[in-house]
Amino acid sequence: MRRTAALILIGNEILSGRTRDDNIQFLATRLGELGIPLREIRVIPDIRTTIVETVTELRARFDEVFTTGGIGPTHDDITSPCIAEAFGVPWEIHPPTFALLEAHFGAENFNTARQRMAKLPRGATPIPNAVSIAPGFSIGNVHVMAGVPRIMRAMFEALAPTLKQGAPVFSRTWHTTSLFEGALADGLEAIQNRFPDLDLGSYPFHRDDGRKGVALVAKGQDRDAVEKAAQAIYELLKEKGGAPVEGELPP
Amino acid sequence: MRRTAALILIGNEILSGRTRDDNIQFLATRLGELGIPLREIRVIPDIRTTIVETVTELRARFDEVFTTGGIGPTHDDITSPCIAEAFGVPWEIHPPTFALLEAHFGAENFNTARQRMAKLPRGATPIPNAVSIAPGFSIGNVHVMAGVPRIMRAMFEALAPTLKQGAPVFSRTWHTTSLFEGALADGLEAIQNRFPDLDLGSYPFHRDDGRKGVALVAKGQDRDAVEKAAQAIYELLKEKGGAPVEGELPP
Repeated sequence: MRRTAALILIGNEILSGRTRDDNIQFLATRLGELGIPLREIRVIPDIRTTIVETVTELRARFDEVFTTGGIGPTHDDITSPCIAEAFGVPWEIHPPTFALLEAHFGAENFNTARQRMAKLPRGATPIPNAVSIAPGFSIGNVHVMAGVPRIMRAMFEALAPTLKQGAPVFSRTWHTTSLFEGALADGLEAIQNRFPDLDLGSYPFHRDDGRKGVALVAKGQDRDAVEKAAQAIYELLKEKGGAPVEGELPP
Repeated sequence: MRRTAALILIGNEILSGRTRDDNIQFLATRLGELGIPLREIRVIPDIRTTIVETVTELRARFDEVFTTGGIGPTHDDITSPCIAEAFGVPWEIHPPTFALLEAHFGAENFNTARQRMAKLPRGATPIPNAVSIAPGFSIGNVHVMAGVPRIMRAMFEALAPTLKQGAPVFSRTWHTTSLFEGALADGLEAIQNRFPDLDLGSYPFHRDDGRKGVALVAKGQDRDAVEKAAQAIYELLKEKGGAPVEGELPP
């Protein structure tokens, strides 16, 4: 069964260059393992109309949509009310979350800003947050998580068992130095034509230490086809004079 | 003058988790320096209709659009013909690029696959590639670059002097440990209201080594306003019992 996912990173810090993303690779890898491969990623700013329109578009096009960022207590944390708007439901105090946060912060420190984190779109299910308590949430096929990587990962692992999984994706990789894509392209295309349901990828590398070459990857949900394509890739690399090594080039 | 940019990363390797992105932060930072701040990023697969539709949408919405990936010689390198399709122009041999690549590879190694890299959308201007010769290109407000970070950076620096720049973005940051967003949110919102044209950001950190706290950033094109907002942020952090340190938390 094929299932698909999209990811929306919400906030200005990636767009401004302040922060290097540390969430995409984790989520891409975990979603592949769960058989819900990631098909599109968007990085958008904290602008209400942009968030509402992006969520509305992607939740119609993909089986599952994940968001990170914008669910803290500050004025620029507007993800949660925007999701409510995208679903056309009120954004309101969620009493069990209110009680949880009041107990965590203490009544005297549970100020108006922090009380915003106790508001969810009506009908949402909280995603537990083992790190800093304030939850994410799921509503329909949209899953809203924190942007801080430690917290996002804890939320994702709490969420994962509730997701409907697809067939896992298998992958085999060979790399070689001293051979380049241009010499392999025709042979690789012939292998792709033999295995049309697989994704065959060609990834040149050119490292600062001078190592140059290419990694060829066969990927798909049919494990037997992946194995056969990987064997054909190995033979192609040998035939062209390469020294194929299984896996990715080490750092 | 306000100018805006969008970035499209084309290819399956980020989406599958195979590759950690190493281009976004570089481009976000350099575009901020040039006064063409990045407003949206998309990561999309090597699918013709997706590439054509994404380029068509974003080039209408932003002043400049940058793409990375999909311009090599292999079957999955389809960015260049897709850009031609988005602009409604033929994708054809560009004679100076053909001559350049033939001289580089030698006539006997300049096979059909490599000759694809000599084809550009009609009317495109090549972007020189000091690393591996095969150029990127600009057409209209769309700038097409390689995905390999070393090559992308060389192309971007060749392209940068040709871009119409906007007013540069200034930024000041204070961070503190032992204070959290929830205690600062109201004060920060008051500062935002005093400086509505600035972006004030609040970025909690929670490191694996146990350091927890928050960084507050003031950013905008009016340097004097940025300085004043940064002073107000410093005073807010002191008032709330923090120990403000200028700049980001070190790694």
